Amino acid sequence: MSGSIASSGCPEYCMWASSAVVRRQLFLIRSLGGYCCRIHSHRMRGIQGANVEASEADAESIIRRVTPALDPIRYKGQAGKIAVIGGCREYTGAPYFAAISALKLGADLSHVFCTKDAATVIKSYSPELIVHPVLEESYSVRDDERDSVSAKVLSEVGKWMERFDCIVVGPGLGRDQFLMGCVSDIMRHARQSSIPIVIDGDGLFLVTNNLDLVRGNPLAVLTPNINEYKRLVEKALDCEVNDEDGTNQLQLLARRIDGVTILRKGKSDFISDGEAVTSVSTFGSPRRCGGQGDILSGSVAVFSSWARRHLLSTKEATGKSLSNPMVLGCIAGSALLRRAAALAFQNKKRATLTTDIIEYLGKSLEDICPAE
Amino acid sequence: MSGSIASSGCPEYCMWASSAVVRRQLFLIRSLGGYCCRIHSHRMRGIQGANVEASEADAESIIRRVTPALDPIRYKGQAGKIAVIGGCREYTGAPYFAAISALKLGADLSHVFCTKDAATVIKSYSPELIVHPVLEESYSVRDDERDSVSAKVLSEVGKWMERFDCIVVGPGLGRDQFLMGCVSDIMRHARQSSIPIVIDGDGLFLVTNNLDLVRGNPLAVLTPNINEYKRLVEKALDCEVNDEDGTNQLQLLARRIDGVTILRKGKSDFISDGEAVTSVSTFGSPRRCGGQGDILSGSVAVFSSWARRHLLSTKEATGKSLSNPMVLGCIAGSALLRRAAALAFQNKKRATLTTDIIEYLGKSLEDICPAE
Repeated sequence: MSGSIASSGCPEYCMWASSAVVRRQLFLIRSLGGYCCRIHSHRMRGIQGANVEASEADAESIIRRVTPALDPIRYKGQAGKIAVIGGCREYTGAPYFAAISALKLGADLSHVFCTKDAATVIKSYSPELIVHPVLEESYSVRDDERDSVSAKVLSEVGKWMERFDCIVVGPGLGRDQFLMGCVSDIMRHARQSSIPIVIDGDGLFLVTNNLDLVRGNPLAVLTPNINEYKRLVEKALDCEVNDEDGTNQLQLLARRIDGVTILRKGKSDFISDGEAVTSVSTFGSPRRCGGQGDILSGSVAVFSSWARRHLLSTKEATGKSLSNPMVLGCIAGSALLRRAAALAFQNKKRATLTTDIIEYLGKSLEDICPAE
Repeated sequence: MSGSIASSGCPEYCMWASSAVVRRQLFLIRSLGGYCCRIHSHRMRGIQGANVEASEADAESIIRRVTPALDPIRYKGQAGKIAVIGGCREYTGAPYFAAISALKLGADLSHVFCTKDAATVIKSYSPELIVHPVLEESYSVRDDERDSVSAKVLSEVGKWMERFDCIVVGPGLGRDQFLMGCVSDIMRHARQSSIPIVIDGDGLFLVTNNLDLVRGNPLAVLTPNINEYKRLVEKALDCEVNDEDGTNQLQLLARRIDGVTILRKGKSDFISDGEAVTSVSTFGSPRRCGGQGDILSGSVAVFSSWARRHLLSTKEATGKSLSNPMVLGCIAGSALLRRAAALAFQNKKRATLTTDIIEYLGKSLEDICPAE
């Protein structure tokens, strides 16, 4: 097995599969501020025979740790301002799901930046969202005006950027080439402004084809599903997905993209920033209706913003950052979605839709971390 | 403290912070028809050592006092006709929240005047609203037609104006320069027609940059949040917000704009028309989701219309006006929003959104002032 991986162009694999890695993982688990306290049975056989384990996150404790207290002296915006970049002629549900999920978890403001066609529809789903009809697709842009339109799109989004605690790129974005170019510019702008960024759906298609958009950005999270993960592994590691050694491979993938956080979605979700690998295995729902990934991306955006703020304040107090906020955000988002999906399924069975799951986000959070 | 204010160009401050002010306030409180019957603990140290107190309103008694009886012989329109001026390409939720809140409190008709882009969406939120797609933004108006379009907008809104008991200017208005010009004309027209006007959101941006739009208008209410208040103080008083002496400063601000009523939103809401300062401190909800200010503006519009009618009828009977209807409307609106927010939060916790609060406006009013 190790031979097959090595021959697929993954030289770093050997380094990561040694028993030293296991020790390092355990050390990191201990040093991650207590969020990895139960060792779960996701045992995977590493290269050279080492058994590398992903640690099952104590997600509820993380959720309690990062969720801010509701203090009456706070004012609008302090519990989080999120933006979703997505929504085109074809897709309008996905950006809505991501943006409304952020609000239902407790963010104060949720924006969507989409095309004009999508904007009217997304606005009509809910008056709670602020929807900006500023993106453009190729069909609406003449060749000779591409540069000026592109600059205008960046300027329209850019003037809002610094207000956001996190942006989600990808839900319902589509794959129009002109639009992809504009969104690449937006991602670069977000990075320059140190705005965390969660990338899902068509945003992952964009990033997989241009890894430099996220390489070395510790504030970037990728949330691939099975197919998106496959393409990412093929592109970044130049090999096939190896489920026998999934933990090692995920760790290596995150390192190869130099410090981004990856949430690999599946029966269990696996999360790594190139250091420890953590899993979230709470059973959610057997329904696989479209849109659950959008809830996840919106939730990860909120929780990682909260975690970032929590860690910054802790750092101020203790002079030491306890962990990676993006990893904490992934764990919290994954666990909360699973809990909400389980509640929705209990109630609606085969008829469970994404909207039903969103309605349980509040109760799920309340059960873990009461508001009062 | 007094030095810092005096040096910030607020000469009237000294006059207002003398102990004579305290006596005058107490006299005004007594003469305000009984709506300030409990003295609350918002104690603030005035200049020259005087302790100036804001009186906590007996809001429930005011709500009962001004809310009209539901008499079967009344016909459509008599319980209130409200209009919201707002809604542009970017914002549609805010004017909807303000307009629907007015209906949910018991107004008979609620109109929205917005741009064409916004109108379709706002109409789709609810068939209860009457939505006029008459406003225009710069991008849809050629330079050579600005005057004629501007005149047409004013004429379209103006022909409805006298039917309204109150207009709300600002929710989701945006800051387009051409639109701002048209809305300034609408505000002048409302004033000439003696139509009360509640100004929030981008309407406050407009007014802060041109205080003459409201100066000396006793039928105008400004409802600034923390940031909007800051800009208003800087512009009108040429100094910084001084929370240590907040009551005095609010009183002075209302006087400087010559008799408008200001509702300063915060943990407690403070209300002044330049005479007494009243507070509403009932605990609402710790959620700060966007849109709650729009509920407030719509509610203040309804309650101040009711208060105005109530006071006019009382005047007819007794020959004496008991109080300022705009102040009464602010107190009632503030208290009712807080009550509805508390009920919504009790039910939805962190997932509480503005729509949830609106659903409790009816019950909140019923609890205080039963319809039968």
